[in-house]
Amino acid sequence: MKEQIWDQIQTVRQQAPLIHCITNFVVMNSTANALLAAGASPIMAHAHSEMNDMVSIADSLVINIGTLDEYWVESMRLAVKQANLLGKPWVLDPVGAGATAFRDVTLKEILQFHPTIIRGNASEIMALANQNTSLTKGVDSLHESNEATEAAKQLRVEFGSVVCISGATDIIVGSERIIRLSNGHSLMTKVTGMGCTATALIGAFVAVNPKDSFMATVSAMALMGVAGQIAAEKSNGRPGILQINFLDALYQLSEEEFLNMVRIS
Amino acid sequence: MKEQIWDQIQTVRQQAPLIHCITNFVVMNSTANALLAAGASPIMAHAHSEMNDMVSIADSLVINIGTLDEYWVESMRLAVKQANLLGKPWVLDPVGAGATAFRDVTLKEILQFHPTIIRGNASEIMALANQNTSLTKGVDSLHESNEATEAAKQLRVEFGSVVCISGATDIIVGSERIIRLSNGHSLMTKVTGMGCTATALIGAFVAVNPKDSFMATVSAMALMGVAGQIAAEKSNGRPGILQINFLDALYQLSEEEFLNMVRIS
Amino acid sequence: MKEQIWDQIQTVRQQAPLIHCITNFVVMNSTANALLAAGASPIMAHAHSEMNDMVSIADSLVINIGTLDEYWVESMRLAVKQANLLGKPWVLDPVGAGATAFRDVTLKEILQFHPTIIRGNASEIMALANQNTSLTKGVDSLHESNEATEAAKQLRVEFGSVVCISGATDIIVGSERIIRLSNGHSLMTKVTGMGCTATALIGAFVAVNPKDSFMATVSAMALMGVAGQIAAEKSNGRPGILQINFLDALYQLSEEEFLNMVRIS
Repeated sequence: MKEQIWDQIQTVRQQAPLIHCITNFVVMNSTANALLAAGASPIMAHAHSEMNDMVSIADSLVINIGTLDEYWVESMRLAVKQANLLGKPWVLDPVGAGATAFRDVTLKEILQFHPTIIRGNASEIMALANQNTSLTKGVDSLHESNEATEAAKQLRVEFGSVVCISGATDIIVGSERIIRLSNGHSLMTKVTGMGCTATALIGAFVAVNPKDSFMATVSAMALMGVAGQIAAEKSNGRPGILQINFLDALYQLSEEEFLNMVRIS
Repeated sequence: MKEQIWDQIQTVRQQAPLIHCITNFVVMNSTANALLAAGASPIMAHAHSEMNDMVSIADSLVINIGTLDEYWVESMRLAVKQANLLGKPWVLDPVGAGATAFRDVTLKEILQFHPTIIRGNASEIMALANQNTSLTKGVDSLHESNEATEAAKQLRVEFGSVVCISGATDIIVGSERIIRLSNGHSLMTKVTGMGCTATALIGAFVAVNPKDSFMATVSAMALMGVAGQIAAEKSNGRPGILQINFLDALYQLSEEEFLNMVRIS
Repeated sequence: MKEQIWDQIQTVRQQAPLIHCITNFVVMNSTANALLAAGASPIMAHAHSEMNDMVSIADSLVINIGTLDEYWVESMRLAVKQANLLGKPWVLDPVGAGATAFRDVTLKEILQFHPTIIRGNASEIMALANQNTSLTKGVDSLHESNEATEAAKQLRVEFGSVVCISGATDIIVGSERIIRLSNGHSLMTKVTGMGCTATALIGAFVAVNPKDSFMATVSAMALMGVAGQIAAEKSNGRPGILQINFLDALYQLSEEEFLNMVRIS
């Protein structure tokens, strides 16, 4: 499987897919740079007047509700409908699910369009499956990935999506398989938008492998984890330089490094 | 007092308060990273439909008008009302006060809600107190901190807010006390959003010490100044790497470094 | 000519012009930092209620449609009208021209206001002149600069604008002259917003030299190319650190380095 993932990483670099992101203001710059470093081509766009056109020229769509408002929710609706109409894959990042009623109502509606893939932290995945009775703490998870496995399976059954719970261990739930990845580093939680970047990378991988969204998700998360770990190990506990080293690791990652480091089970 | 400030820095790290920021597009990423590096948990949100909910789960609120428009001004209005209703502390950053009539009208209205703390550069504080008859130069100050002391006192009396004038010397004006901090470095003016970051850090400190908003402001500005100075001294005149070193200094600052460097009078 | 350009670089540093940017969410932070590093003073603002005031206090205006929507298009309209009324120079960056009908309709309208300068990649310049019958790939160019020279000349004649095609070679088309610059580095295409930064720098240079918008454009692009090349050569194939090194190079560039490196023909 490791070699198969490496092939996917190479395919993204060679095909440079165009990823249409409707994402939040906090991470637009870091997401665009991560997509470029991984070999993809990002475009951020949200105008209602161009949603159909933009989805049409893109290879996949990323929906991230981090700084949503009423206008942007309509952009998401339009884009997702068009993606489904054209059979293009799309990824949902339910940032802050459970934090406010507006987020929950919005997510409930977006889920009805059946995302190809959903990626969130454990608290978000649990909130999305209505299993989280306590409030989440803004955008940070209060739960371990393991605690959300049942919620992920429920979302999988209900909406047909591949579901990825990211955290110290990443858990990817497909129709018949569950894979766990244990790369990454705790310092990554001190940089904003690492989860959002993971979602965007999934967008890039499913763009070049739309027929196997499970393997696309596993591949993106494996790249994310290995690049993050390489970067963190070089950063000596400094979150500022981690951001920079992470982009460099994404761009420079070699087959040997990847195969040696990736931890799948 | 130095030890008391250090205790506050530790408290932010231990309690990891949730800071709701309604801030400008330019600095959202750097503000979020600075809050994370200081140990707080940022959330950026502005949808009218979730303002009440978001303020309710947050420990404090930061209002920064840098890239305001009509929609965002209403977001600010809603959030500030809810914060006051719930007795939560909030901080106002009057970016570009005096630059346009729209900013001045907006600020005049927001002031009526009595910010817990106001932080701006000298020109902004003077404009806010109607003492600045000449136009400001966009978002950069044309005045020294000292020139704005009377304006700060006036705002203090009129609105009951702690007022912080930031610059080469930071001046914090409370009900009976004035404190001056003289850390920092001139290279910090070559990085965008350092003032906005200071405001967000004040939000983090007042979140864990709502009963003493004066000491919270002094503590945040002391951390800002010392971390900025450490970072600038490592950066050899390079503003690009200063941003990175600043986040690292915020995250790694030790008690010994802090107590040795901080300059209070 | 090299010495003349160096004089312009010094003039920006000395005069610190105020540049009003209506630009996209992805690059606001990096654009602001690049303007600061070059010695200018950036302000990002888009509220309809302050467009007239803001344009009035600014020395030049930058219009970048990267993440346009209906509200922001009206902001651009208002700002451009005011700039023309006051005789202030303004620069258009037609990000993603040709990608969607909404972009093309918007650009067609904005062109009627006769931008002082237009800067885009080859695909964008060709789309702007209706010479690009195939779709562009989002915001990335599918063409070499040379292929767009005729399109640039056509735009020059039709709208009276100086036109800059940026790429491996930058081509600046004025009324009687064409200049080619060949600094820069391919790694710069792996960092988001480098083109947007170039446009903002043009805004800074035309602000201090409004009477010679051709030389202002040549000077800004020469600075961009030399600083980018210095940064890339220090970055050893790492796009993350390139962003940082680029800001440092902009800020620290010396006369000797500049005169030795710049390649004009």
